[in-house]
Amino acid sequence: MTNTVHQGAAAIATRVRHPHFQGLVTDAATAVARIQDGDTVAISGFASAGTPKAFAPALAERIRRVRAGGGKLSVNLLTGASVAGEAESTLAEVDGVALRMPYQSEPTARGKINDGRMDYVDIHLSHVAQQVWEGYYGDVDVAVVEVAAITEDGKLVPSMSVGNNKTWLEVADKVILEVNSWVPLDVEGMHDVYYGTALPPARKPIMLTRPADRIGQQYLEVDPAKVVAVVPTDEQDSETSVAAPDAISQAIAGHVVEFFRHEVELGRLPAAGLLPLQAGIGNVANAVLGGLAEGPFTGLTCYSEVIQDSMLDLIRQGTVAHASATSLALSRTGLAELVDNIDLYREHVTLRPQEISNHPEIVRRLGIIGMNGMLEADIYGNVNSTHVGGTRIMNGIGGSGDFTRNGYVSMFLSPSTARNGAVSAIVPMVPHVDHTEHDVQVIVTEHGLADLRGLSPRKRAPLIVDRCADPAFRPMLHDYLDRATARPGAGNTPHILEEALSFHTRLAATGSMLE
Amino acid sequence: MTNTVHQGAAAIATRVRHPHFQGLVTDAATAVARIQDGDTVAISGFASAGTPKAFAPALAERIRRVRAGGGKLSVNLLTGASVAGEAESTLAEVDGVALRMPYQSEPTARGKINDGRMDYVDIHLSHVAQQVWEGYYGDVDVAVVEVAAITEDGKLVPSMSVGNNKTWLEVADKVILEVNSWVPLDVEGMHDVYYGTALPPARKPIMLTRPADRIGQQYLEVDPAKVVAVVPTDEQDSETSVAAPDAISQAIAGHVVEFFRHEVELGRLPAAGLLPLQAGIGNVANAVLGGLAEGPFTGLTCYSEVIQDSMLDLIRQGTVAHASATSLALSRTGLAELVDNIDLYREHVTLRPQEISNHPEIVRRLGIIGMNGMLEADIYGNVNSTHVGGTRIMNGIGGSGDFTRNGYVSMFLSPSTARNGAVSAIVPMVPHVDHTEHDVQVIVTEHGLADLRGLSPRKRAPLIVDRCADPAFRPMLHDYLDRATARPGAGNTPHILEEALSFHTRLAATGSMLE
Repeated sequence: MTNTVHQGAAAIATRVRHPHFQGLVTDAATAVARIQDGDTVAISGFASAGTPKAFAPALAERIRRVRAGGGKLSVNLLTGASVAGEAESTLAEVDGVALRMPYQSEPTARGKINDGRMDYVDIHLSHVAQQVWEGYYGDVDVAVVEVAAITEDGKLVPSMSVGNNKTWLEVADKVILEVNSWVPLDVEGMHDVYYGTALPPARKPIMLTRPADRIGQQYLEVDPAKVVAVVPTDEQDSETSVAAPDAISQAIAGHVVEFFRHEVELGRLPAAGLLPLQAGIGNVANAVLGGLAEGPFTGLTCYSEVIQDSMLDLIRQGTVAHASATSLALSRTGLAELVDNIDLYREHVTLRPQEISNHPEIVRRLGIIGMNGMLEADIYGNVNSTHVGGTRIMNGIGGSGDFTRNGYVSMFLSPSTARNGAVSAIVPMVPHVDHTEHDVQVIVTEHGLADLRGLSPRKRAPLIVDRCADPAFRPMLHDYLDRATARPGAGNTPHILEEALSFHTRLAATGSMLE
Repeated sequence: MTNTVHQGAAAIATRVRHPHFQGLVTDAATAVARIQDGDTVAISGFASAGTPKAFAPALAERIRRVRAGGGKLSVNLLTGASVAGEAESTLAEVDGVALRMPYQSEPTARGKINDGRMDYVDIHLSHVAQQVWEGYYGDVDVAVVEVAAITEDGKLVPSMSVGNNKTWLEVADKVILEVNSWVPLDVEGMHDVYYGTALPPARKPIMLTRPADRIGQQYLEVDPAKVVAVVPTDEQDSETSVAAPDAISQAIAGHVVEFFRHEVELGRLPAAGLLPLQAGIGNVANAVLGGLAEGPFTGLTCYSEVIQDSMLDLIRQGTVAHASATSLALSRTGLAELVDNIDLYREHVTLRPQEISNHPEIVRRLGIIGMNGMLEADIYGNVNSTHVGGTRIMNGIGGSGDFTRNGYVSMFLSPSTARNGAVSAIVPMVPHVDHTEHDVQVIVTEHGLADLRGLSPRKRAPLIVDRCADPAFRPMLHDYLDRATARPGAGNTPHILEEALSFHTRLAATGSMLE
């Protein structure tokens, strides 16, 4: 029996306010006894926030016991995006996951995937709910969803992320609810859960026209007959820590802010509030948001997946009027700030299902400015976001394609080098493409910004090299480009196929892309 | 003076019914005198239909004369998609086009692009109007738009395609109208021109929920003050001819129809009418539509770019209830059939701006089944639609990305080999990616169909090889895959970078991908 079930009856009654659900209170070990070999299990969690806390350890323990008894037990694991690292690693360590979808960012799981011991389906986050509804992953046997509370009338107060929870609760045969008493009850009212999606031909327009619009309801719903266990927990979300911006991140942020200024000057972005911003997770994105804190823009809005610490600062100082996302991925400091000023943030933050936060219809309508990280770009503007050396998965495409493909301006940001200068983020040809030349509009490194809009491939290439590549790599890239272009029948996109991947083969052979 | 201006005054009065516009009637030579060196000229035309007939010859003639006099004259040319081959080649032959956007499919233009003598910006067709509005192509100096007639109150009856004409008429400083008396006046009422798009943050939901919905108006509008010339013409649209389906196309069509049957059986597609179909241009797409004529599906709808001959057959026999597109790209026989039965087709066909026919919001909402051709796919499901050998442009991405990225099921169809078996359509790695592994769901050749949905890269690869590759190439592909997968640290997507492009380098060296 875990410690969680020992929470006082009073604490449980505060969080589980409906008698039917009170009768289902149990511990995680009992709850996971429902899970069978080959089950498809869909759990809550997006960028660590809202991951069920008791589920992974209890399931890993059960897997160990079943195997010790000569049995078999592994599951297909569906989530919102990444989940808390401990949950991901706990299950990967016991080889408990046969198929993983749609995103991970944890070393143990990554290792299993790259060793071919875990199937990984790396799809756009806006496609997950629809593909599960379409039946591509078979039946969902069990949903495990963390909530902040169960109300008197049996509705669910979502916790720190929404992700695919609405879908999981709808499609699963059985539901396990983790009721986490650490989640501040004051988050109630911050969520907007839209119940209007459907499979075609029954789909209707989604009537959201501004990031602050509320089109749904505050609560998740569940059919009580499907709920097989209610597990009380009290663990905090694991922290999404962010490094203080270094000189490189700050330089990148500077180019981005300057670009916005320039676009406003040309009348291509509205001076009042620009357009809704989307920023990926990580230090560079955090630095860009930090850069915006210094002005000159106000009345900004964000329509994104995650809210990081820097967003809270922007809201607090009034630079950002509203931030819409599907997850609160905060550091300990950020979490404390959120809880201390929950009334402020409830007014200026909306958490939505990821189907809506990343929806192509909304991304196109709002005119999102997408800013995502990358592993590398090639000289023609194709971007690799996922596969190191073209073969080894890093994390996954996540939502970057959702915002890049349908947004208003699509930007990719990265330091120009990695591994102490041995690896260039600008290469002749990327060995894996996640975002094509048709979609990538702006590339930014600490050296500068290449605006590719309206340019042919031959015009893009020198711009990307001269603005974005590290000076140590520019002569090699120019030499490649010059020789490729000089060949007879060089084509619209000149390449020398025998050398196109030479930066990567040299890196593998010598430890450096430098000659 | 061209022959067109000699049309009788009575004929002109029938087509140009407003006195202001009657006063602007002139010939094409006079009209193109308005065009200056460096101008951006946006013309009508989508898949040959609705291309201005007098403009290209007159501009080419003017370019020759200006250059003979020591002057300079070339333009940036924007269109809907491809235009009539003669118009494209006439201007390319005189090197009259500095920059071309967004699509071409003509040998002379293709040659100039691949020689680096014409800049080509190859973008998604759903992005064209928005990017021009955003100002990425500078000012549009002149629009040249073919219409069927100008009404008594100065409205424009569109001709055989809509394309970007609404946008061209709105953004251009000067407008030249070609009024083509060949276009049957009975097309009036077939068009639905939506005037509700805007730049963000002013965008609203587009309230179209079925392919037959009408959300706009029958006519195009133009500010009469911008119109500088009205040029009468009477030339037919050039023909989009289609070969009778060969055994390979029929085999591909058979696999597609069987797939639909299977999906209906599993409850993943509605038995009544499936979901709206999109089919690219060409013989394979035509064969698939032909295959649908044999049943068992009825009440089908299409939401696509072009209507080809086979669609008329499907409408006539009642298999297709409604077809929405932006262009009528027909053979001579098809054109005659359309004109002879215009009342039937006006009821069952809607022509829309390409911004709407390809709009991500609508494509996602309707749940389009996208079926597009390709040059080649790799063993992991990345698709090259545009660049032969990774360098030489064929046509362009066109609308394939619009339907693939946001649709419900995304299929790519191709014969398994080209050049008498020397070229495989399935290769280890494509040297150019237009559609990524995250978006490509189904690949079909005459040998079979690979359903990639829900599969990891390592599961996809043998399926694609065994189902889709020509048997002559299967051992080579399996050998590559086996050796790549056996390497230490093979990764999520095993490759041997030194050999990944070897099919293409061997083809260049020996004329065949076979060893």
